[in-house]
Amino acid sequence: MSTLVAVFGTAVRQLREARGWSQEQLSEHANLNRSYVGEIERGQVIVSIVTVDKLARALGMNVAALLDHCEQIERLRRVQSIKLAAIAC
Amino acid sequence: MSTLVAVFGTAVRQLREARGWSQEQLSEHANLNRSYVGEIERGQVIVSIVTVDKLARALGMNVAALLDHCEQIERLRRVQSIKLAAIAC
Repeated sequence: MSTLVAVFGTAVRQLREARGWSQEQLSEHANLNRSYVGEIERGQVIVSIVTVDKLARALGMNVAALLDHCEQIERLRRVQSIKLAAIAC
Repeated sequence: MSTLVAVFGTAVRQLREARGWSQEQLSEHANLNRSYVGEIERGQVIVSIVTVDKLARALGMNVAALLDHCEQIERLRRVQSIKLAAIAC
């Protein structure tokens, strides 16, 4: 699986938890299966842009903002891994 | 097919043409099949986020920027349809 798939799952989980929602609540808002939402959050499935759109609408944001959140997570992870590498040196 | 699928195709075509690339060139840069790129541009297939990522990288942008371009197209279309409706009144 690509990095984006894992990061997308993390982003969905973070945004859901920030709203205090359970996976059940997010799946209802997005009209998706609960277990499918779980798989998405664990980075186990490659979602289509239609699913990204459903999740973004459920979270009250547009698809670009949702994917921008993914890139912020990716940037943060890169910075953290550089810091860890620097500590190890 | 959802609006996003059609708009995504238009966005990819616009961005490809802005670079003066053929579908063949974009498909090579993105490591995708040429006919698949044609289907994407015509809004005939629902792409996954992995394909969005491949296309964004090939076009030298991030996924959020590519999807932001889609939303700009959607906003413009909405404005145009409101203007047309106003003319028709």
